[in-house]
Amino acid sequence: MSRRERQAVRGIGYGGDYNPEQWPESTWAEDIRLMAEAGVNLVTVGVFSWSRLQPAPSDLTAGWLDRALGLLADAGIGVDLATGTASPPPWLVAAHPEILPVTADGRRLALGSRQHYCPSVPAFRAAAVDLASRMARRYAGHPAVTMWHVSNEYGCHVPACYCELSAEAFRDWLRARYGELGRLNEAWGGAVWSQDYTSWDQVQPPRTTPTFPNPAQHLDFARFSSDELLACYRAEREAIAVHSPGTPVTTNFLSLFRPLDQFRWAAELDVVAVDSYPDPADAEAHLLSAMTCDLTRSVGGGRPWVLMEQAPNAVNWRPVNVPKAPGQYRALSLQAVARGGDAILSFQWRAAATGAEKFHSGMLPHAGTDSRVWREVVRLGADLGLLAPVAGCEVPAEVALLLDWESWWALEADSHPRRLRLIELLREFYRPLFEAGVTVDFAHPEGDLSGYRLVLVPALYLVSDAGADNVRRFAATGGTVLISFFSGIVDTSERIRLGGYPAPWRDLLGLRVEEFAPLPDGAVVRLDSVLEAGEADGSGRVWQDVIDLRGADPLLRYAEGHLAGQPAATSHPYGGGEAFYLGTLPDRATLRALLARACHRAGVAFRTDLPPGVEMVRRGGCLFVISHLDRPVEFELGGKSLDLLTSDIVGPAVALGPRGILVLTARD
Amino acid sequence: MSRRERQAVRGIGYGGDYNPEQWPESTWAEDIRLMAEAGVNLVTVGVFSWSRLQPAPSDLTAGWLDRALGLLADAGIGVDLATGTASPPPWLVAAHPEILPVTADGRRLALGSRQHYCPSVPAFRAAAVDLASRMARRYAGHPAVTMWHVSNEYGCHVPACYCELSAEAFRDWLRARYGELGRLNEAWGGAVWSQDYTSWDQVQPPRTTPTFPNPAQHLDFARFSSDELLACYRAEREAIAVHSPGTPVTTNFLSLFRPLDQFRWAAELDVVAVDSYPDPADAEAHLLSAMTCDLTRSVGGGRPWVLMEQAPNAVNWRPVNVPKAPGQYRALSLQAVARGGDAILSFQWRAAATGAEKFHSGMLPHAGTDSRVWREVVRLGADLGLLAPVAGCEVPAEVALLLDWESWWALEADSHPRRLRLIELLREFYRPLFEAGVTVDFAHPEGDLSGYRLVLVPALYLVSDAGADNVRRFAATGGTVLISFFSGIVDTSERIRLGGYPAPWRDLLGLRVEEFAPLPDGAVVRLDSVLEAGEADGSGRVWQDVIDLRGADPLLRYAEGHLAGQPAATSHPYGGGEAFYLGTLPDRATLRALLARACHRAGVAFRTDLPPGVEMVRRGGCLFVISHLDRPVEFELGGKSLDLLTSDIVGPAVALGPRGILVLTARD
Amino acid sequence: MSRRERQAVRGIGYGGDYNPEQWPESTWAEDIRLMAEAGVNLVTVGVFSWSRLQPAPSDLTAGWLDRALGLLADAGIGVDLATGTASPPPWLVAAHPEILPVTADGRRLALGSRQHYCPSVPAFRAAAVDLASRMARRYAGHPAVTMWHVSNEYGCHVPACYCELSAEAFRDWLRARYGELGRLNEAWGGAVWSQDYTSWDQVQPPRTTPTFPNPAQHLDFARFSSDELLACYRAEREAIAVHSPGTPVTTNFLSLFRPLDQFRWAAELDVVAVDSYPDPADAEAHLLSAMTCDLTRSVGGGRPWVLMEQAPNAVNWRPVNVPKAPGQYRALSLQAVARGGDAILSFQWRAAATGAEKFHSGMLPHAGTDSRVWREVVRLGADLGLLAPVAGCEVPAEVALLLDWESWWALEADSHPRRLRLIELLREFYRPLFEAGVTVDFAHPEGDLSGYRLVLVPALYLVSDAGADNVRRFAATGGTVLISFFSGIVDTSERIRLGGYPAPWRDLLGLRVEEFAPLPDGAVVRLDSVLEAGEADGSGRVWQDVIDLRGADPLLRYAEGHLAGQPAATSHPYGGGEAFYLGTLPDRATLRALLARACHRAGVAFRTDLPPGVEMVRRGGCLFVISHLDRPVEFELGGKSLDLLTSDIVGPAVALGPRGILVLTARD
Repeated sequence: MSRRERQAVRGIGYGGDYNPEQWPESTWAEDIRLMAEAGVNLVTVGVFSWSRLQPAPSDLTAGWLDRALGLLADAGIGVDLATGTASPPPWLVAAHPEILPVTADGRRLALGSRQHYCPSVPAFRAAAVDLASRMARRYAGHPAVTMWHVSNEYGCHVPACYCELSAEAFRDWLRARYGELGRLNEAWGGAVWSQDYTSWDQVQPPRTTPTFPNPAQHLDFARFSSDELLACYRAEREAIAVHSPGTPVTTNFLSLFRPLDQFRWAAELDVVAVDSYPDPADAEAHLLSAMTCDLTRSVGGGRPWVLMEQAPNAVNWRPVNVPKAPGQYRALSLQAVARGGDAILSFQWRAAATGAEKFHSGMLPHAGTDSRVWREVVRLGADLGLLAPVAGCEVPAEVALLLDWESWWALEADSHPRRLRLIELLREFYRPLFEAGVTVDFAHPEGDLSGYRLVLVPALYLVSDAGADNVRRFAATGGTVLISFFSGIVDTSERIRLGGYPAPWRDLLGLRVEEFAPLPDGAVVRLDSVLEAGEADGSGRVWQDVIDLRGADPLLRYAEGHLAGQPAATSHPYGGGEAFYLGTLPDRATLRALLARACHRAGVAFRTDLPPGVEMVRRGGCLFVISHLDRPVEFELGGKSLDLLTSDIVGPAVALGPRGILVLTARD
Repeated sequence: MSRRERQAVRGIGYGGDYNPEQWPESTWAEDIRLMAEAGVNLVTVGVFSWSRLQPAPSDLTAGWLDRALGLLADAGIGVDLATGTASPPPWLVAAHPEILPVTADGRRLALGSRQHYCPSVPAFRAAAVDLASRMARRYAGHPAVTMWHVSNEYGCHVPACYCELSAEAFRDWLRARYGELGRLNEAWGGAVWSQDYTSWDQVQPPRTTPTFPNPAQHLDFARFSSDELLACYRAEREAIAVHSPGTPVTTNFLSLFRPLDQFRWAAELDVVAVDSYPDPADAEAHLLSAMTCDLTRSVGGGRPWVLMEQAPNAVNWRPVNVPKAPGQYRALSLQAVARGGDAILSFQWRAAATGAEKFHSGMLPHAGTDSRVWREVVRLGADLGLLAPVAGCEVPAEVALLLDWESWWALEADSHPRRLRLIELLREFYRPLFEAGVTVDFAHPEGDLSGYRLVLVPALYLVSDAGADNVRRFAATGGTVLISFFSGIVDTSERIRLGGYPAPWRDLLGLRVEEFAPLPDGAVVRLDSVLEAGEADGSGRVWQDVIDLRGADPLLRYAEGHLAGQPAATSHPYGGGEAFYLGTLPDRATLRALLARACHRAGVAFRTDLPPGVEMVRRGGCLFVISHLDRPVEFELGGKSLDLLTSDIVGPAVALGPRGILVLTARD
Repeated sequence: MSRRERQAVRGIGYGGDYNPEQWPESTWAEDIRLMAEAGVNLVTVGVFSWSRLQPAPSDLTAGWLDRALGLLADAGIGVDLATGTASPPPWLVAAHPEILPVTADGRRLALGSRQHYCPSVPAFRAAAVDLASRMARRYAGHPAVTMWHVSNEYGCHVPACYCELSAEAFRDWLRARYGELGRLNEAWGGAVWSQDYTSWDQVQPPRTTPTFPNPAQHLDFARFSSDELLACYRAEREAIAVHSPGTPVTTNFLSLFRPLDQFRWAAELDVVAVDSYPDPADAEAHLLSAMTCDLTRSVGGGRPWVLMEQAPNAVNWRPVNVPKAPGQYRALSLQAVARGGDAILSFQWRAAATGAEKFHSGMLPHAGTDSRVWREVVRLGADLGLLAPVAGCEVPAEVALLLDWESWWALEADSHPRRLRLIELLREFYRPLFEAGVTVDFAHPEGDLSGYRLVLVPALYLVSDAGADNVRRFAATGGTVLISFFSGIVDTSERIRLGGYPAPWRDLLGLRVEEFAPLPDGAVVRLDSVLEAGEADGSGRVWQDVIDLRGADPLLRYAEGHLAGQPAATSHPYGGGEAFYLGTLPDRATLRALLARACHRAGVAFRTDLPPGVEMVRRGGCLFVISHLDRPVEFELGGKSLDLLTSDIVGPAVALGPRGILVLTARD
């Protein structure tokens, strides 16, 4: 959150999406009254209001919005005002049917839900910029408006379009990237399968093909599609800036969402914002939401950020939508504050009575204020009011997980030794650190790693020369790195780095991977461990590298199969640092032991005394202790502290109730 | 079956689809001879004969049909004569390719199977009416023709079409429903997701969209699609009436088939007819077929009906087509008579030698008359001859299951708290009543309930104001109702009834549901029961309502999870009646105990002495006792009666062989 | 392999696909040097080189190919030179977008992978013939070129096209088959479902229909699609013959690949070649690859054949690509030699660095020559050099498995009593024979069976009159046949052969099948055996026939269910021979006992002393003994022999290491 916006909300922002146009105007006074009761100070308005803001291709018809913003301003509630461009209205689609997006197999999607637009269609871009411009002109300087919200969840349902206009835009993008066709043919491996292009207009998006598509074409199309949506965002942002130059501009990301390269995007946002919808039916919902928080903070370079959407209770879009447990809304909200969030918003203020989202929970449920959800909403508002001291503070981290959207796109293409899913792998590496109270940043391979002690490199299949050098340099200057299987395999054109894997890091790791021996789903291989006593032997899953040691020391060995006796994990000193390698995905306990060893080597504190399910994370001068357990839990804190939420002195022993939370600061 | 038709067949009708045009004319004499041997007195002719009846767009070429009908008339076999319009011939499709239907994602389906037509295409309707008209003109008054059979299984493979002509027809239908666009926007919730229409021609069928479609648009399209097929039926019926005014007209329904609103349809049929294809591999095939019978009787308002199609043995269209067990064809046929059927027909008379249905069994199998199937066919003919006394009699029922196709369409749309399948729920409520010898009607929520003692309301998600009042009034005047979770949630525009669920029945039930807590597939929650002793504690599945008691007494409580201790099922006196509520789907034994209690409260006899798998149902003066078991079974009848099938006096103890059947009447 | 080609490679051919155009010319010298090191004497060049051979629609730009072929010729390495037509280049697709194939549901597939062509499009055929012609003109008589390789894996990704040009070609094909439309209507059963055509232009390919398509139309389209691809092959072959008349021409089959009728195709190939990719994760990979070898030998009428492609290690196109175990590449290669292969090639020489196949293993892996794979490649080259004596020799077989592609197409259509998969059934019958050291040919039902003692007929659903007579005649003249359920059911127009199944073989078998009672997936039925003592009772799966004995003796009886006590398998003397029948699919042990009995009756040696996993097969004067086991194994050979691979004398007891191999010949 920018300084300006922070001032506006004075502390931690709190609220949700507010859609007054869906309700009789007579209910608005009740909304304002209940917002005050709950401590709401920030609402998002107008996200899907295009058809009500502009019922025809002319000026705004926004009297209703004037009145709503007036009420909010009078109540001192800030507004994150949407440009309203996420869902083109029927009249626009009727006038320009080419706006409707086309799937890879050539089906044009229809009007009737939302986000039904191709980002490359000029008529759509012009109309969106026109609306954004009109909104900015009308509401620039409005006392309620503290932030501009461009579109919504870019790429959510239509991450890419394959229509002819997209094809033209893709060719323009490729021309800009490659200059001449020969370089494209070289990069895409035109000699394979007779794919040399002799004219730009032969080049197409990777539409449905008889068999595996060209992986480099696929990768460039993913780059293009992310850029093309970003161009939509930029165009609206620039239109806003003309009329409302000082107000921060944002859009809401979708957490670990593959289609958008958030490192590229975040650089264009004044405030980074995210929507977080972990599944309450997942016993590790809090782990995934913590990853979301850390990622959002990281792509913004550590800036405070906004939790733009979460659900106060159940969502509506899963096959089975389990509600949040009592206290879970609060625990995940305070987790977001602990990990750098300066505003906690929900979708949406009042649960809808019509439309496709009417079973998505709201802060004000269908049942009204005599409800568990409303009582939790009021309580959270009070809690957030007490946490004003942490607003704007930083969240320190000594460990980085490398993440690169380009590698992600390439990794999950077809025709690989085995299907891998990056989010699942990230979760495996993130879990033991979370449970040990180690705060983690996500970092780009070419980013500045100098502030970290330990860098983890899980399945970074594609790496640029600069990225590969950056990791090597980090270790050479004393850092500890841990690299997993299937990292460093291809360059940015999806070309194999030859001579034994991972070619750019063989010296760093002191080994050479000769071949891959992936394991079928569900298969495990026993491992012999050479870790210190007490660390039991374990098993590997998913993958096996065939490792040829060239200086590294084995830490784990395969104990069965054709690779019995060969190394499965290694360590190797390099310059002032050390490089660990994992040729398989060990079971959880073994992976925890390896990460503990890597943390120890790196000088990172790795707690083993936290009860599983209890989160501990430091922000500014506060230590957040959050139980995500359904039952009470007791443990030692190691001292006495002041709990900001209760003003009690607690410790050294503490007892937390179900989903109990402490926000500890020095006694003074 | 109408009075006229009943006279024609003199007793119970028996036969099947007869397709003489698929066989050399030399075999027809054998057909007639074998029909006589089997007691066949009614056959359906010409269902898929369009291309042989009218090889070009001019007059009929029906000499073959003249000859076949002549043979049948001579043999005294009645004919249910089809208009032949279910499958447009190649010449018609070639002349009007727009007849071919289009899927929601824009694919036009091809010629080569059957029922490849869009019901809204004028060229199709005109050609179908033309053929029906020519058939009626030619065969009106033919001595063999006792009934007209319009088309076949409307909606079976193509329940809806999404082509441009359908879009136009949909707009006309909407214009008729809403009058002005503003009312459509209001009903469809245009304010959500920017969906306000400003011109009628912007409105489209719910084609494939990027994400969840507008649920109200989806619901109106389901209404439209049922009506559009009904318009096809009506047009043919009217064409027939011009030439053959006195002969009853029917078409064959597809049992619990979602696309057609059978309550609306049945009002337009002189005779209600149904096709019933329970899977013999399902151990509860007899339960599903009983539901089919009761539904068919119910939509016709209690009139006798026709079992138009069943399989004498296996079908051909499942992945694995298990044959019927010995005696199963007979048991399910007599079940149909017991539940109001006045004619028992099969598809088809002679098993086909070519085409896509050649592995569908026939009354005369590929193997010929020296076969189990043929022997069972002959035996059934003899049995049916003995059951003439029940023809035309009514089937009394004291219990009604509410069913509304509009609610069904809305219930099974996406984006709900949880996926629910109505047929599965109906089966759960139907089973214990079937096993207790309780005959059930299906009733429309706005229908006359005054004849019932107990009304069950399973997942009636959508209910009109009139329907909600009707249920309340039923209880107020002394009736017993049992309402399940996710009932009374939305109005006829899919708009939430606010203020706590189920809004229209909170007073009736003495409670308020605050939120939904659906259970994942396979998950169960333990329940504590406060039912009388002997009713063991059980468990809940599928759903949990969070119930706030406002006068109701708890009958079951959740015994674990966040809702431990809260009520899961309740009862509440209301006016002269009582209202039960179920917030979860209990295990079978618990549900049986609850239904027994509800029956007891309502004064409905609920037998607990029937061996599972033995059916007991009363029609007219007869009590049908049908074993669906593979093994012999003994039990007490409680008196002596005359068995119509054997003329034996049986009881009070009876022993039935595998799939043994008694049709008992007073000794006289 | 033809005599000419065999001379060229002098012994067993060895090598792989070589794609020099994918690598800098500077690496070619290394390629040649390493080929020599490995003993490579035959490489396939140019399979996917169209865009590099002909960058525009004019003359060849093949200087690079001249140079590469020159290097190969200088090194004495023969070349199987591709016409390069498997993947049309972008310029051709841009000029003729109608080349892109269309799916059954109307989607046109895109450029970007390979084999993106409709075989019926004139522009494609002309361009392919033009390229083949130019290649043949330029390289006819080139010293390196020993064989022509037309296209690649015909039908692999696009076995059939449904575009309008395909529709026209289909109509032409049908006109040629039926002459007049009335005969087509008769064959397709036009009377069913109103499908009589009145004009040829009404006839369409079996595009996606509302429900099951016409099975006879489906079958004719499968025939047409195989023929249409064959016409492409023929056209290229004829173009080659003009310029290079003496050089043999081939294309590579895809093993048990349903779309191509290999019996029809093989007649047009000078050398039969196959690609074999068993999954190393399948414990029976060696069984499937043995079937591939036997099939390839059989369709070529016993001629030596070429293993055109296999993987030296893992492939890239499965979800999980397990590598070959140590020695498995060698064992499967020598298996191919044992079963008639005269050349052993791999895809590909050098593992690619770019494109969709870069994770497909190569003989020269990414890791280079210091690798397990390379060492195995070198060893295999040496072994093959020792096996020159078997080149050109025949592989004797006394047992034939009947296989007919037309029956396969018909069998796996929808709307049958049960889904059956022919490959799974073939595997069941092949397994016990393989394990007993019995070599099996595949034979066409109308082929010459006089050389066999035992003929197996598994699920030969469709059989022509000639085929049915052929089998009967074989038994009448002393042969033993074993026929399974669902054989002899329909004629070549998919018309049921009436009167009790299998109509053409009821006399032969001494029984009549009255009806089918298929078993659901996973269900089994216990069987009582009347086989001799020691053969335990077993169970049946998949299917049950209801058998009416008419002279046959029961061998197995159903022991439970409605068919308890009825026969499940039978035998019946017929003429000088005997006919066995199987009405169910017995468990493995029971099936083995039945096949042992049939072999015994036929006078075919059925060994029971081979350890499971050890293969034994005779070619020419050599007995190949191949262990496919991961562990050592010992057993008795029964004599002393000379091992060609080691020149050791071995026997009578032998001990084989993991995947150990002996090639035994008389001591001399």
